[in-house]
Amino acid sequence: MINSSIDNQYMQLALQKAEEAYGNGEVPVGAVIVNQEGSVIASAANSTISTNDPTAHAEMIVIRNASMKLNTDRLDFCDLYVTLEPCPMCNHAISLSRIRRLYFGAYDKRSKHINNTEKGNIFYKPEIIAGLNEQKCSKLIKDFFKKLR
Amino acid sequence: MINSSIDNQYMQLALQKAEEAYGNGEVPVGAVIVNQEGSVIASAANSTISTNDPTAHAEMIVIRNASMKLNTDRLDFCDLYVTLEPCPMCNHAISLSRIRRLYFGAYDKRSKHINNTEKGNIFYKPEIIAGLNEQKCSKLIKDFFKKLR
Repeated sequence: MINSSIDNQYMQLALQKAEEAYGNGEVPVGAVIVNQEGSVIASAANSTISTNDPTAHAEMIVIRNASMKLNTDRLDFCDLYVTLEPCPMCNHAISLSRIRRLYFGAYDKRSKHINNTEKGNIFYKPEIIAGLNEQKCSKLIKDFFKKLR
Repeated sequence: MINSSIDNQYMQLALQKAEEAYGNGEVPVGAVIVNQEGSVIASAANSTISTNDPTAHAEMIVIRNASMKLNTDRLDFCDLYVTLEPCPMCNHAISLSRIRRLYFGAYDKRSKHINNTEKGNIFYKPEIIAGLNEQKCSKLIKDFFKKLR
């Protein structure tokens, strides 16, 4: 499933959004929400700096936009594609929104440790497909931080 | 500090917001953000149902509104008052926004377990004052769920 061209197509779109974030001086992360028919419902670039909103991660924006567009707070028929492993905030938003499947590109060691604390976790978890287009997703982030230093 | 009347005044306002949520058929949680001079910057009621937004917890709304109002994504000179112990999403949003101090009312066992997983947590944590006005905050939530059943 990891190399299916359809999945990759959505991750490509998420990557475009990540590049858009890069161009705006934001940490380059992009996200896309797709429904069960394969229609793109929402796509967004990380924009915490430009909007002065620490919660404006790409995943939060697409969850909010998709929910409001579809008039429901339950996205259990939708999949989320994001170029970076979600942080604990986004992870729990994904849980609250009942996203069916989560595809992410680059791994984030900091989030991984926290998110993987399964013991006692009684919250909903989506199916997770990790490392889709990992190299491209991770290169973009590495390039961004290299440029900053 | 827990019984200072000034702190309680802000929790009272958060409780008013929680009652507003109750009246709207929402899980009754309210939140307030206050700056270092003691001015209320933002207040909000939980509104996930009415807005069809699973991320519209009271804490998320006040963090977003305060950040945009103050034109900064760092709220390190602000305190947050919320009637219920924050869920993992809100907890990490509080971390990302660098809120100075978190006051919460009622305890939430489900969140507690996850949020207290300190081992390996490298993210910022605010000072936490737990159980402020606990009884009132917790009674409101218990009443709400009793009515639902």
